[in-house]
Amino acid sequence: MAPQVTVDSINPKVIECQYAVRGEIVILAQKLQQEIQAKPEAYPFQEILYCNIGNPQSLGQKSITFFREVLALCDHPAILAKSETQALFSADSIERARKILDQIPGRATGAYSHSQGIKGLRDTIAAAIEARDGFPADPNDIFMTDGASPAVHMMMQLLIRSEKDGILCPIPQYPLYSASIALHGGTLVPYYLDEATGWGLEVSELKKQLQEAKSNGITVRALVVINPGNPTGQVLAEENQKAIVEFCKEEGLVLLADEVYQENVYVPEKKFHSFKKVARSMGYSEKDIHLVSFQSVSKGYYGECGKRGGYMEVTGFGADVREHIYKLASVNLCSNITGQILASLVMSPPKVGDKSYESYIAERDGILSSLARRAKTLEDAFNKLEGITCNKAEGAMYLFPRINLPKKAIKAAEEVKTAPDLFYCRRLLNETGIVFVPGSGFGQVPGTWHFRCTILPQEEKIPAIVTRLTDFHKRFMDEFRD
Amino acid sequence: MAPQVTVDSINPKVIECQYAVRGEIVILAQKLQQEIQAKPEAYPFQEILYCNIGNPQSLGQKSITFFREVLALCDHPAILAKSETQALFSADSIERARKILDQIPGRATGAYSHSQGIKGLRDTIAAAIEARDGFPADPNDIFMTDGASPAVHMMMQLLIRSEKDGILCPIPQYPLYSASIALHGGTLVPYYLDEATGWGLEVSELKKQLQEAKSNGITVRALVVINPGNPTGQVLAEENQKAIVEFCKEEGLVLLADEVYQENVYVPEKKFHSFKKVARSMGYSEKDIHLVSFQSVSKGYYGECGKRGGYMEVTGFGADVREHIYKLASVNLCSNITGQILASLVMSPPKVGDKSYESYIAERDGILSSLARRAKTLEDAFNKLEGITCNKAEGAMYLFPRINLPKKAIKAAEEVKTAPDLFYCRRLLNETGIVFVPGSGFGQVPGTWHFRCTILPQEEKIPAIVTRLTDFHKRFMDEFRD
Repeated sequence: MAPQVTVDSINPKVIECQYAVRGEIVILAQKLQQEIQAKPEAYPFQEILYCNIGNPQSLGQKSITFFREVLALCDHPAILAKSETQALFSADSIERARKILDQIPGRATGAYSHSQGIKGLRDTIAAAIEARDGFPADPNDIFMTDGASPAVHMMMQLLIRSEKDGILCPIPQYPLYSASIALHGGTLVPYYLDEATGWGLEVSELKKQLQEAKSNGITVRALVVINPGNPTGQVLAEENQKAIVEFCKEEGLVLLADEVYQENVYVPEKKFHSFKKVARSMGYSEKDIHLVSFQSVSKGYYGECGKRGGYMEVTGFGADVREHIYKLASVNLCSNITGQILASLVMSPPKVGDKSYESYIAERDGILSSLARRAKTLEDAFNKLEGITCNKAEGAMYLFPRINLPKKAIKAAEEVKTAPDLFYCRRLLNETGIVFVPGSGFGQVPGTWHFRCTILPQEEKIPAIVTRLTDFHKRFMDEFRD
Repeated sequence: MAPQVTVDSINPKVIECQYAVRGEIVILAQKLQQEIQAKPEAYPFQEILYCNIGNPQSLGQKSITFFREVLALCDHPAILAKSETQALFSADSIERARKILDQIPGRATGAYSHSQGIKGLRDTIAAAIEARDGFPADPNDIFMTDGASPAVHMMMQLLIRSEKDGILCPIPQYPLYSASIALHGGTLVPYYLDEATGWGLEVSELKKQLQEAKSNGITVRALVVINPGNPTGQVLAEENQKAIVEFCKEEGLVLLADEVYQENVYVPEKKFHSFKKVARSMGYSEKDIHLVSFQSVSKGYYGECGKRGGYMEVTGFGADVREHIYKLASVNLCSNITGQILASLVMSPPKVGDKSYESYIAERDGILSSLARRAKTLEDAFNKLEGITCNKAEGAMYLFPRINLPKKAIKAAEEVKTAPDLFYCRRLLNETGIVFVPGSGFGQVPGTWHFRCTILPQEEKIPAIVTRLTDFHKRFMDEFRD
């Protein structure tokens, strides 16, 4: 018999799932890159400028020295006792590596850990959350994961029983959520962020969408909030967060708080507040609200995407439900230990008085201030372009400008059976090597068009991006202006 | 409103999923361990002897020096150029780290990689598969994953559409398979391994179970084979593998080959042959059969469970199906880079002439020969116990002895509403500190009782385990003998 697995016979949920961040535009970019390598004169640019994904180190961002020192020592503890090691590694990295190894049963960094992660590292993380929030955190609430994505999948798997279960998600949203909901067979219940008020999150909109879902027979189980926002870059005000907590409490919804950009805030007037801190400061305890916070080593100033470290803090579920979350974690045995160690490090970096403190602060602030400058430069550049408006980049790693496409361009896109924003992004890529992700991959108000641009290319490359983008955009508008 | 998520309202597939390897007995063991730490005289033993899980380094197995040297250097490449590094690290580990860094775009070990894993590392792995099998391997067929478990989930997610889709699984089986099938809502179609012929895999049994499933309206989509076997420790003969390939080819089934124990073969009369090699040697190409092989850094002589590295080699699917597998990989961005590097290392260890070659071989052979001795000692010990029979430990890391429990013991178990094998394992744990997993966690012929015991406790501990087990078993039989 011929092999039986064809596209017509695979799981339709897999077919339905979309993931634009690594979708068509990126595949095209990789193709162009190969062509340029083979034939440098093939295109009017020598380099692909990847602004499609929050992957800082792929664009030249350096890793934080202290973190990498500790990881190297934990990978090869045999050198800890050697005298040469003291010349090669900072004193506090050696001390920290020893402390971490002592926290690992048998000092075995090559062993499966507890399914939730190494207890000593969870203690460190819980203490750091407590210091950040001013409210207690329990190491038994921490589930360490390979980045935040598997944690999100775990919660979707737990909550979604059928297409009658809905998850409230922002639009625009990070497509991990739509992908995960599709894979688990649930219904994404959209709520629209208000572009006019800087991607504001209005509780009236949440209520409206919840009612509409209910009237369609959907049981809404959870609300996803991404703060700071992806792809929208806004930072929620504390008052707004309180209203969101109140809404979840009133409706009995699980609040799924994507807080992976908690260290990425670029404007002095905004601060990051965890939803747990906000809920606790309102007097709501474990008993009042289900709350899950996601954190990752991939973001922040560290940007250690390839290490796949992260955790979720799970509060407000009964012991019996928790057992099932534990079981889900167990089926994959544990997250990778290097990522676990790194997660403890980003939550507990060098402190005043530590040998590495000053160099660490210099590295950290160098990255964060540069990101803030890049965000502002790109925001300003977008706002100078005809027909483009761009909200303030308050946080995260992205801008999500709106482009008012001429009718002619929309028609040209329709003729090649392409969404207009994809049409624009494809042209941009082919003419300049710049990779943006079309807004349709994130969701947008029907009839509006956007794209997502990361602020991550190295600072010295930003002027060239601005110039190339500006020139391209002029040509594009000249070709299609109504 | 009170929080709404209770056990009655979570996904029933999650509730149905079982994972015995980290189940009740292990939770009890962890509790006893804490009690002993607090009060050493609480039990007649000072130490819990974990024989429940294939986690070698948790029991004192050392990591392979060369692998860890390379990982440390890749984690902190800044030291590569320092003179002290040459005193601390072997020359070939420095060379290998440089080579690997050159294979990583931008030398960025902290960046997300290609969704399938770093291309250069996949080239290394494909070359190693080719050298192992004598048939071509394509780096584009390799999907690198965080251990083998996520790869298995990915294939189940792809293949299972509903409970009408079945997956043929061996009984006994490694509970990852039953758990993954349950989570994805499919039907496990069991086929029984024949204990009387050393856990033989009979094609007549496969045919019988396939027919029965078909007559129940189940579309069987894939066959899982674990070779060397888990929990059963047998190594399939090549002729047997050919018959299995022929069966999958005839029935159009995907052959899901769990080959993570490919380096764990302990008897000279058996050799590991990959299913791909067997299929290709029969003249079957990509076009004839869907074949997926799983490999992991957690097993072999390396036992690097905590690093979560692994890959699957996916052959025989059309380009359109492959795109969907790629998309599934993309949704989690990539597997961890440390695990990716390690997967390339275990597939391409030091070679004759390399500086580390001799010490590497000594470490590898020391571990493998000790594992073979431990397997034999435990096998012999089990076979000396009244009412226990144990097949030969040909490979993998486990023994799965059968215990002929006295009627009185079965009755005593029933009285406390416990499966008889769990009753035995619980008593064993409480009286000796030894942790076995009851056979019911893996599946067994109804009315027969087994347990799984790893061969991993360090060699100097094996005599104590044998003595404690023997003494316990005598007492148990004296108490319950019919």
